[in-house]
Amino acid sequence: MSDLVSDFNSYRSKMNDKILSGDNKVIKRIFNLDTNAFKEGHLDVKTKELLGLVASAVMRCDDCVKYHLEGCKKAGLTKEQVMESLSIATLVGGTIVIPHLRRAYEYWELLENQ
Amino acid sequence: MSDLVSDFNSYRSKMNDKILSGDNKVIKRIFNLDTNAFKEGHLDVKTKELLGLVASAVMRCDDCVKYHLEGCKKAGLTKEQVMESLSIATLVGGTIVIPHLRRAYEYWELLENQ
Amino acid sequence: MSDLVSDFNSYRSKMNDKILSGDNKVIKRIFNLDTNAFKEGHLDVKTKELLGLVASAVMRCDDCVKYHLEGCKKAGLTKEQVMESLSIATLVGGTIVIPHLRRAYEYWELLENQ
Amino acid sequence: MSDLVSDFNSYRSKMNDKILSGDNKVIKRIFNLDTNAFKEGHLDVKTKELLGLVASAVMRCDDCVKYHLEGCKKAGLTKEQVMESLSIATLVGGTIVIPHLRRAYEYWELLENQ
Amino acid sequence: MSDLVSDFNSYRSKMNDKILSGDNKVIKRIFNLDTNAFKEGHLDVKTKELLGLVASAVMRCDDCVKYHLEGCKKAGLTKEQVMESLSIATLVGGTIVIPHLRRAYEYWELLENQ
Amino acid sequence: MSDLVSDFNSYRSKMNDKILSGDNKVIKRIFNLDTNAFKEGHLDVKTKELLGLVASAVMRCDDCVKYHLEGCKKAGLTKEQVMESLSIATLVGGTIVIPHLRRAYEYWELLENQ
Repeated sequence: MSDLVSDFNSYRSKMNDKILSGDNKVIKRIFNLDTNAFKEGHLDVKTKELLGLVASAVMRCDDCVKYHLEGCKKAGLTKEQVMESLSIATLVGGTIVIPHLRRAYEYWELLENQ
Repeated sequence: MSDLVSDFNSYRSKMNDKILSGDNKVIKRIFNLDTNAFKEGHLDVKTKELLGLVASAVMRCDDCVKYHLEGCKKAGLTKEQVMESLSIATLVGGTIVIPHLRRAYEYWELLENQ
Repeated sequence: MSDLVSDFNSYRSKMNDKILSGDNKVIKRIFNLDTNAFKEGHLDVKTKELLGLVASAVMRCDDCVKYHLEGCKKAGLTKEQVMESLSIATLVGGTIVIPHLRRAYEYWELLENQ
Repeated sequence: MSDLVSDFNSYRSKMNDKILSGDNKVIKRIFNLDTNAFKEGHLDVKTKELLGLVASAVMRCDDCVKYHLEGCKKAGLTKEQVMESLSIATLVGGTIVIPHLRRAYEYWELLENQ
Repeated sequence: MSDLVSDFNSYRSKMNDKILSGDNKVIKRIFNLDTNAFKEGHLDVKTKELLGLVASAVMRCDDCVKYHLEGCKKAGLTKEQVMESLSIATLVGGTIVIPHLRRAYEYWELLENQ
Repeated sequence: MSDLVSDFNSYRSKMNDKILSGDNKVIKRIFNLDTNAFKEGHLDVKTKELLGLVASAVMRCDDCVKYHLEGCKKAGLTKEQVMESLSIATLVGGTIVIPHLRRAYEYWELLENQ
């Protein structure tokens, strides 16, 4: 696994554990909701992961983009489908999204090559 | 047709005409891209309209939400699918999205009743 | 009660009822969390309402500002404390916050006069 | 003068007076800075007003856009220069800026016709 | 002192000196206002630092979060109070705030351990 | 050339090539529009680069700020003109812009020294 992918996941996992070991119920419930919201419902998992990806991209959160790129990969979405979603994010969110598009492209390549 | 729906569409249409009657090529091309980006491609129109809806909701643009709610309705999406998409937007974008969720719900009802 | 205050609250209440009558659990839980997060805990209600107010102001959500202004009023905060919080929001969030500051000031006056 | 223009200015003026009649020094100084920042310096007033306009447009603040459109008009900028600036704002900020572009176009027309 | 804390502070200090050595009065006054706004007034320093922290978190600025975490530490706020404030930021600002919550948690631990 | 400048440009160039080698027409056209929008028109290149810089700064995108700082340098703008533009960005966008102002100042110095 590439360093960028494993570093991202191990830091994420380590800090989530610390945060969830505290007594803050609001944070725990938000983390819990995040898991539930992306499960199959009236929409399938593929569509939901793309919704999470586009929301993350227009709000320009690299870590959130990475997280949903991993979800997209696991759900079986293709590179073309992911890029088409990101093109909508770039159009709606503007050229300010482009630096995040570059990093998303790089991360997707790493996920494909591992 | 409800006043809210027809007022939104007539103002939108009138101002778009004025803006596009000018000589600014960048604006014309962006308007043109907006039409192309939501056509069927590697993803179907339903998925793309939901992506546009969620991007609009997390960026908290009521007019953009209305525009994509109309697209969702035309594409044949159900109320449950639209609300599930908006629940993801509210989770990712935070409770700050809730006032827009209220207005989106109201606008969807108007679209269903016309 | 001023029209602006009663209109805001009746619309808010009517739409919340409609949204919560649906089957979307993620939205219901987010609404529920919103109630819990602002209850007394390690911080008192006054401080929490000011935190909600400043978060709403820098993210420039008028409805959220109104909602927390009402919370501030009920919690017994003074006009000076509210304005001092909003001055921090204007400094951190920039002059782009000023139009929301004007509407916040107007709404606070209405709350004081009713 | 059109109602939209005069209403905007009289509300703005009335609320600014109220806000500045309070004792909050941070807010007073921010208002004061706003006046100073747009005076001629290493850049001329025209350029500065366009900078204020584009900043307001990408942050999607209608009232701030109106305020700087008035500044642009007073500084002698042409419709073509204003629209070219707004085209950059729409490209950088994305199609989410378009509803604000419509209202900016309408307001500019009102300013030209009075 | 941890490298992360000392690197942040030395870079911040070095660049502030350079910026303030220039002739730009608007920037100098904004820096000055930032110092004044967080002094005791109608609200105490603890409350103000939490307001600065939450504003920084919902606007997702890691450096600003670090700056106010240091202010919170100096003002004598507890970890529980800081985390409760950040839980409000995460609820209001959405799950997009979570990556910043992770880095805030890490930085607070470093401050506690030095 | 400084490492920071050359690293930024080589990564940017490498990833742009990869992204543009794909089949996504929307992304290609947005990249193309970005080149056209900043060419001389009703406004000169200097003014347009400053507009791009301020839009990037208030939306807090470091990579976009760097890109337009390079454009400003090539267009012959002075440090004083760039800093004056960034002071407007800091006033309109708030103190949340300051960390980006530090990195912008550092990058401009690197561009001047190469």
